[in-house]
Amino acid sequence: MIELTLEENLIASKIKKIKYESGSHSPSLFTISEQIPELTIKVDACFLSNPYATELFIKYLKEDLIETNKLRDVLEFYPSQNNIIAGFVSDVINVDKKNIFVGNGAVEIIQAVMQRFVKRKAVINIPTFSSYYEFANDDTEVVYYQLEKENNYEICVEKYLSFIKDHNPDSIIIINPNNPNGGYIPYKDLFHIVNELKEINNIIIDESFIHFAYENMDYSLISATDLFKNFKNVIVIKSMSKDFGIAGVRSGYAVMDEAKVLELLKNGYLWNSSGLSEYFFNLYRRRDFHEKYELVRKKYIKNTSDFIHKLGNISNIKVYPSKANFALIELIDGSTSADFVSKMLIKYGIYTRTGSDKIGLTGEFIRIAARTEEENQIILDALNDLF
Amino acid sequence: MIELTLEENLIASKIKKIKYESGSHSPSLFTISEQIPELTIKVDACFLSNPYATELFIKYLKEDLIETNKLRDVLEFYPSQNNIIAGFVSDVINVDKKNIFVGNGAVEIIQAVMQRFVKRKAVINIPTFSSYYEFANDDTEVVYYQLEKENNYEICVEKYLSFIKDHNPDSIIIINPNNPNGGYIPYKDLFHIVNELKEINNIIIDESFIHFAYENMDYSLISATDLFKNFKNVIVIKSMSKDFGIAGVRSGYAVMDEAKVLELLKNGYLWNSSGLSEYFFNLYRRRDFHEKYELVRKKYIKNTSDFIHKLGNISNIKVYPSKANFALIELIDGSTSADFVSKMLIKYGIYTRTGSDKIGLTGEFIRIAARTEEENQIILDALNDLF
Repeated sequence: MIELTLEENLIASKIKKIKYESGSHSPSLFTISEQIPELTIKVDACFLSNPYATELFIKYLKEDLIETNKLRDVLEFYPSQNNIIAGFVSDVINVDKKNIFVGNGAVEIIQAVMQRFVKRKAVINIPTFSSYYEFANDDTEVVYYQLEKENNYEICVEKYLSFIKDHNPDSIIIINPNNPNGGYIPYKDLFHIVNELKEINNIIIDESFIHFAYENMDYSLISATDLFKNFKNVIVIKSMSKDFGIAGVRSGYAVMDEAKVLELLKNGYLWNSSGLSEYFFNLYRRRDFHEKYELVRKKYIKNTSDFIHKLGNISNIKVYPSKANFALIELIDGSTSADFVSKMLIKYGIYTRTGSDKIGLTGEFIRIAARTEEENQIILDALNDLF
Repeated sequence: MIELTLEENLIASKIKKIKYESGSHSPSLFTISEQIPELTIKVDACFLSNPYATELFIKYLKEDLIETNKLRDVLEFYPSQNNIIAGFVSDVINVDKKNIFVGNGAVEIIQAVMQRFVKRKAVINIPTFSSYYEFANDDTEVVYYQLEKENNYEICVEKYLSFIKDHNPDSIIIINPNNPNGGYIPYKDLFHIVNELKEINNIIIDESFIHFAYENMDYSLISATDLFKNFKNVIVIKSMSKDFGIAGVRSGYAVMDEAKVLELLKNGYLWNSSGLSEYFFNLYRRRDFHEKYELVRKKYIKNTSDFIHKLGNISNIKVYPSKANFALIELIDGSTSADFVSKMLIKYGIYTRTGSDKIGLTGEFIRIAARTEEENQIILDALNDLF
């Protein structure tokens, strides 16, 4: 069982205070480093993103903007309006730009969708990403569908469908793969769900981690965007932060019915993309970038699945099945997740995320992100040392 | 009177189409250049920002982020949350961070304030920045206070006060200096207005151009932030795009009552600043940056006032008084603003903004921004050649 030294306990209380001030999200590494300078952080395993993709993006940005002195244009001038950038996305995902809304990160879109389109009642699966219930309107009834621990927090399709039919919501939210456990709903099951729920106004499918999921050993990309082509009540929300490793750029988009895009644009979201986000979306449609991106995407999936497999061999923890770029682990030796997070941060310089603030999780949970192969090894070594 | 050649007319119709697709805002230079590659644009006098400040920002960014390889951190990781960045702003403006809300550009804050706090009735002065009425809720009654052409579109304080008292709105909006004319309300008049209107729930003062205004020949900064300290119904909205020349970074903040900040943060605005915007706000509080910024701010004000003075000597146009970084000019030789914009763009490579889509302007109006001294000279030469 993990126990903290006196000195570690002092730092742990500072960590708790910073976490408390950050509400239901993790404080950034900047914030922690600034407020607890005595910490040396080696690996940010709280942070869910593909580091190889970040490298690729930085390489392009250096060549395209820094070496050419075009960076100034990107910073100085107003970026293009939403429908122009939607056109860039359209080129990649093969959906008409009228059905694409570009956001300042996916979370801006979550806020917009929850507040503009979700009306009477929403069913949200838990555990989940908290913004979906936090940003719901006060007069929207939020009903939680508890993913079952016995089923590894994976969805049981028929139970879910009968729950939805019983509760008759106007909106449902599915994160696929789900955060914080990484549970994945195969495309055919998702099709079945959507096909059964034609009367629901908004079927919100958050695919922020879909680039890490796979159904074949070629790791081919799958997306609910294809469902949208047949079911106009589907809203697909996509963060670019995780798969492209650019959380600081704030890029996301959503696919939805044209009338919904128009309603959003009529009411705001002017210049909501930064110049760098516009640059990213312009890059996203370039074939040469895309080919290189596919290589780092697949490399990262391979590393991640090796990492999660090795985590499974460590004693005193249970690793939940994941098709995202992280693993939910449960401490089963009586240790608390708070002590685990503190110990990992203070003794090993590894930042992990507690699951203690996630509603719908019962037990002592930690979410650990996969990083580079070398960083994953540091995490594995630390865990083997710890237990 | 301005007349277009046949060839110019062909390009002019393309310009009109792009403008039409941009709604009530100007299409970006990127969009125009991409869609009309035959144009060579030398000066963007549509764009309202201090180019010397952009240079300063880029210089710091190169030293701090590019040469040190810290740029990756800024792009890869999630930025800090709103209240952390509010703390940076607090250091500069001497207002408690609990009263500061940081936005993805001022326009995000305009949308938030108009949709969350403005309820029953808003009085908006026209001509003005269109987002204030475009983003108002459908059930908010918008009443326009027409700034009088005979008074150079400047506000007449007593008339305005009696209009407000007659209409009894819950919210009023004042842009100071105003866009598109640059009309400025001196601090003592603004104090008088606010002091007379204690019963109004929201006195929204947009100071996006305040860094270009002055009341003494030292060009000392003035701000309604000081009013907020005595009148809690004041909301000050501040874009950083214009004065710091960083529209592509999307940075803005607002000062308002703590309960209003809390209401916004409870309902969203998570990670709404990009990593670069966080970097900017961190830079903003550094004394060395601030001292250098004050030099380029004052240099630009000096250039701008010379430029506007020289515009006043050109025949066939009337120049309206401005304490912003642009001048509203009226064509008084029978030319149309559309022909003026096309001619300036096609023949001289100068991009100016028509006033034809601004409600509350009667006549043929153009807004011309001040740029560098050299660019201002190119504009003056073109106008002298044209008329």
